[in-house]
Amino acid sequence: MTTARELGLWTEGRNGLPPGPLNAITDVPGVRVGHRTLQDGGLATGVTAILPHGGDLFREKVRAAVEVINGFGKSAGLIQVAELGTLETPILLTNTFGVAACTEALIRRAIAANPAIGRETSTVNAVVLECNDGAISDIQALAVSRDDAVSALDAAAPGPFAQGAVGAGTGMTAFGFKAGIGSASRRMRIGAQDFMLGALALANFGRAGDLVLPDGRRPDPRGPAASEKGSVIVILATDLPLSDRQLQRVTRRAGAGLARLGAFWGHGSGDIALGFTTADRIDHDAPAFQPVSRLADQHIDAPFRAAAEATQEAVLNALCAAPATTGRSGRIYPSLADWAKENPK
Amino acid sequence: MTTARELGLWTEGRNGLPPGPLNAITDVPGVRVGHRTLQDGGLATGVTAILPHGGDLFREKVRAAVEVINGFGKSAGLIQVAELGTLETPILLTNTFGVAACTEALIRRAIAANPAIGRETSTVNAVVLECNDGAISDIQALAVSRDDAVSALDAAAPGPFAQGAVGAGTGMTAFGFKAGIGSASRRMRIGAQDFMLGALALANFGRAGDLVLPDGRRPDPRGPAASEKGSVIVILATDLPLSDRQLQRVTRRAGAGLARLGAFWGHGSGDIALGFTTADRIDHDAPAFQPVSRLADQHIDAPFRAAAEATQEAVLNALCAAPATTGRSGRIYPSLADWAKENPK
Amino acid sequence: MTTARELGLWTEGRNGLPPGPLNAITDVPGVRVGHRTLQDGGLATGVTAILPHGGDLFREKVRAAVEVINGFGKSAGLIQVAELGTLETPILLTNTFGVAACTEALIRRAIAANPAIGRETSTVNAVVLECNDGAISDIQALAVSRDDAVSALDAAAPGPFAQGAVGAGTGMTAFGFKAGIGSASRRMRIGAQDFMLGALALANFGRAGDLVLPDGRRPDPRGPAASEKGSVIVILATDLPLSDRQLQRVTRRAGAGLARLGAFWGHGSGDIALGFTTADRIDHDAPAFQPVSRLADQHIDAPFRAAAEATQEAVLNALCAAPATTGRSGRIYPSLADWAKENPK
Amino acid sequence: MTTARELGLWTEGRNGLPPGPLNAITDVPGVRVGHRTLQDGGLATGVTAILPHGGDLFREKVRAAVEVINGFGKSAGLIQVAELGTLETPILLTNTFGVAACTEALIRRAIAANPAIGRETSTVNAVVLECNDGAISDIQALAVSRDDAVSALDAAAPGPFAQGAVGAGTGMTAFGFKAGIGSASRRMRIGAQDFMLGALALANFGRAGDLVLPDGRRPDPRGPAASEKGSVIVILATDLPLSDRQLQRVTRRAGAGLARLGAFWGHGSGDIALGFTTADRIDHDAPAFQPVSRLADQHIDAPFRAAAEATQEAVLNALCAAPATTGRSGRIYPSLADWAKENPK
Repeated sequence: MTTARELGLWTEGRNGLPPGPLNAITDVPGVRVGHRTLQDGGLATGVTAILPHGGDLFREKVRAAVEVINGFGKSAGLIQVAELGTLETPILLTNTFGVAACTEALIRRAIAANPAIGRETSTVNAVVLECNDGAISDIQALAVSRDDAVSALDAAAPGPFAQGAVGAGTGMTAFGFKAGIGSASRRMRIGAQDFMLGALALANFGRAGDLVLPDGRRPDPRGPAASEKGSVIVILATDLPLSDRQLQRVTRRAGAGLARLGAFWGHGSGDIALGFTTADRIDHDAPAFQPVSRLADQHIDAPFRAAAEATQEAVLNALCAAPATTGRSGRIYPSLADWAKENPK
Repeated sequence: MTTARELGLWTEGRNGLPPGPLNAITDVPGVRVGHRTLQDGGLATGVTAILPHGGDLFREKVRAAVEVINGFGKSAGLIQVAELGTLETPILLTNTFGVAACTEALIRRAIAANPAIGRETSTVNAVVLECNDGAISDIQALAVSRDDAVSALDAAAPGPFAQGAVGAGTGMTAFGFKAGIGSASRRMRIGAQDFMLGALALANFGRAGDLVLPDGRRPDPRGPAASEKGSVIVILATDLPLSDRQLQRVTRRAGAGLARLGAFWGHGSGDIALGFTTADRIDHDAPAFQPVSRLADQHIDAPFRAAAEATQEAVLNALCAAPATTGRSGRIYPSLADWAKENPK
Repeated sequence: MTTARELGLWTEGRNGLPPGPLNAITDVPGVRVGHRTLQDGGLATGVTAILPHGGDLFREKVRAAVEVINGFGKSAGLIQVAELGTLETPILLTNTFGVAACTEALIRRAIAANPAIGRETSTVNAVVLECNDGAISDIQALAVSRDDAVSALDAAAPGPFAQGAVGAGTGMTAFGFKAGIGSASRRMRIGAQDFMLGALALANFGRAGDLVLPDGRRPDPRGPAASEKGSVIVILATDLPLSDRQLQRVTRRAGAGLARLGAFWGHGSGDIALGFTTADRIDHDAPAFQPVSRLADQHIDAPFRAAAEATQEAVLNALCAAPATTGRSGRIYPSLADWAKENPK
Repeated sequence: MTTARELGLWTEGRNGLPPGPLNAITDVPGVRVGHRTLQDGGLATGVTAILPHGGDLFREKVRAAVEVINGFGKSAGLIQVAELGTLETPILLTNTFGVAACTEALIRRAIAANPAIGRETSTVNAVVLECNDGAISDIQALAVSRDDAVSALDAAAPGPFAQGAVGAGTGMTAFGFKAGIGSASRRMRIGAQDFMLGALALANFGRAGDLVLPDGRRPDPRGPAASEKGSVIVILATDLPLSDRQLQRVTRRAGAGLARLGAFWGHGSGDIALGFTTADRIDHDAPAFQPVSRLADQHIDAPFRAAAEATQEAVLNALCAAPATTGRSGRIYPSLADWAKENPK
């Protein structure tokens, strides 16, 4: 797995923030990632699971925010996250027509762990996001099953994880290159403490010819510049205590990271960011009042910057980690890593 | 099927609008409604389908708007409707855990009719809304299947349709009474032309003791005043040409209709309105520019009023049409029609 | 000053909440209200000031939320409140063309108290809301001056305050009746503690013939049922610790209170609610992290209900407290108190 | 006046759109721009007027949309634009504390032209946007008067106009450089017709060290990297017929243009975009139904791209056109044009 930094594709200015030790979303303590990859016949698809912590999310919810940058997408669960600001299942990423199966897997898993769901207590809100991998995989096959979702959930672990053409990213492309799953992180020092913000991108967006590298170069895959389609999902995680409003504002900055890559949030692209903080979790049976921590707004530019930078680098890492692939129509989606080697600065 | 008007429960002021001939959403030309009811064992659930017109919605989309009054809900497809303002599948209503099956049914049906979906053309956005019928039905059974969704779609027809404890409304309750599906409509005269606006409510909301009738009486089911849960879905249909913005504003007024019933859009209630207009449809392969009609804002109070009134009466009709039922816990949900007969004015 | 309760116009169900001792927004500890009334020649206008506490709001901000129910309005400062969730000046209410003068008064007053504003520290966000009193007063006179704003601010005091045709409410009408300023409050018991929520309405909305009393009666002023214009501003105050998101959701419920009165949030009516909590204030130079209190969502129906009820009763009180008046065109705006006396139940 | 293209600072990829003949917002037929500059003593401020057409905007409104990218701002009139989607006065840009005077100037001017305002017809919604020029000018002086606003309005003319440190841009800075007013435009070919989209930026944002040029270079003014403050206002104009929803989505893409410059929409920066289309105007007394034109969504990537590119280049032009200046604290804000000459590629 090659990264943008290894290929010399990451440059930054004097205000840039340092990455965490893994330069990945799993730098945020507790966060786990797991993949299930489906690749045979005409299939190149899968599921990626992101777990905010290792416990039962229904019992111990994390606070979350959604930013719909461009809503051409078919995700599940976002309306309730937007209203309540809580996440009570793991997050699953998959292809557009895999959302229903993943939703049902999350519901069944939550019921199994909490038999009171829908009976003595409320129902459960499954969160699933998606991109269309139809350029490479046969999406009409509706190939992703509940078992695949379970496999991705079971595979989730802390620490480093595979990036590129893996899990939900198996069949994804971006800017005419092969893409998929990528991640990055930033360390922030606030009030004498260190905090982490990590991004995981499912990158499947951007028109060929539009990609801009941090050094200003514009890698062109030479394929046809079809209109921007696909989508990109950005998951942001942090351990910084943020109010609901602050978390929303931080999550919005994922859009800045995408725009720096040359995207303009194209019409046919479901560009959605979901951010969560592992700080100040919410017990399902919380007491009436609970002490929590409030960050002063004067310090919020740090997570704003971290969100934009980590999103930008996560997408570059998705591009760098994925090998060249041939699409269903015979079109070749080259590897940005290969381009970088052929085009030294 | 008894209606609020038949029971003398509808009163209005001097500015009220007249209902259409059916006083139902199917007064809007082209609109079809169909039910699939599941009722045996511990089950009392189902699916209700609303079709904006009789053709292929993917090819001939209608314009739509979403108003999330209180987003404690697990619907599918709303993010894209909010972004694009179009509806490209029928609308299905069901119970909370039936959304995935209904979504998949809509996707498969759209692909069968349009094999280019997800291949030569974009994917398809299935729209499914839900309430939690767990007070009466065993929601953990995940009993609603893709076949049930297909049955409701196949049953859809213009003209009068069953209301009360039927289709998605089979297991629903509101304000401590048995409730379910209800509908109403209003005729508007604008610029020497008549237009229709219809509402269909899936009513499953409101705390016992909170219901207020148009005449100010407060029917109390005498059961425990549990906290407001459940949800209510309001579908608004019109043949009035409305801009995207106007349609959004009209749809928002469903919330006013709910509030007039005594609701305050409770925390645990997923109160969502979806409005569509059958005017100025959008062909999937539309030319670059198309002539459409724009309503002057000066006339928009008519559909505003119609939306509030029709929503209010649709919920009352849902309450009046449903017979008394015993819930899973043994609690009795009385019939508002019975209350009305026992409490003449 | 007559109130709706004194006239027997308030009725409620079994879940209703009790009012505070003053049944006014000043039941919330620290909140102050002051009026400046301009009434001579063709003028019937003024300014009303609401102060969340007695200190310097720029130094000690309160958290606030805005709900634009229908945005046909010309208020100042709401964009920043919506983004940051803080209020750093008193709130001024006035007529539509008085906003600029009131804004400047607030800016100058803040600078006088904090000479660092716009120099060593940020600028200041003045919050002014308005309704159009042109039916009674000559709005083209732009009669409200900075001095009038200062007078209202200087007059602000805790405790009971004048309601009806006073301050910003001097020239306002609603549902064809004379209206103006009204207020109400509710006491909530949460986790063994009592909290207060108060509403102050500047009522200038609703079409003649649309008003519905809590008992279902529809007082008709017999004037022409001109289209709904005007506007209504609702200020909600509480001492309950609410997260930014919770405060937003509570503030949204003002719209439910308006709808219960028969309004449908008419096109030409700028219906805007601004809510603030005096709990967990924000120091202008806050430390990086501060301990605050978080309310469990399970308890939020209490402030939801309080917001809807207090808004509804505040408007009724505005109607009951205002004497009959003749408008600029000669139209008579009767008094709801007179109607109530002539129409005993 | 130097431009980014003249200095070789503009580069683009293969999908870039060509600029209009003036590469300015006035390439959109009918659009006019005028300045009033105040520069003496400690003052360096002013007013810039943008007129969508040469007629009476109250009588002949244009459709408009607002995108609040980061709402730390004190603009006037945006709430109503967001609700109704119409612009009925010219747009004025000024400093933060000049908003009230500009608002009143617009109101008085509208009343003078339409004596029915606030009497026989509705009031008028003045639109004024602002940035804080306190780093260079004494903002506490509240120096901008109604007469200054009138001067800017009277100066408005079609064709080329001054950019850089002029009008509202006189005292503005960005990324540690002197900045101010800048503009750019793009030509779009849709359905065999040419359309224009223009941007005008009031650039006063971005932390020193964060600016990224299209070629990847990072000009550093070497001053202290104070936290991002200031603000940026982007006005987008087009003659393309766009629905309200489409116009909103186009306007949102201004944020992408800002992010490409290295901004992350900082906390203290009021980043606001307002877009309008001169197509399908709305007569104040429009008939009930009017024929208008609808663009197919498949073509909307063209104005999306144009909005992002024109915004990015407009800010660069603001930076290139402004000469080096010394701030109130003695800090020097260098000229990007000087930097470009000293740093040839």
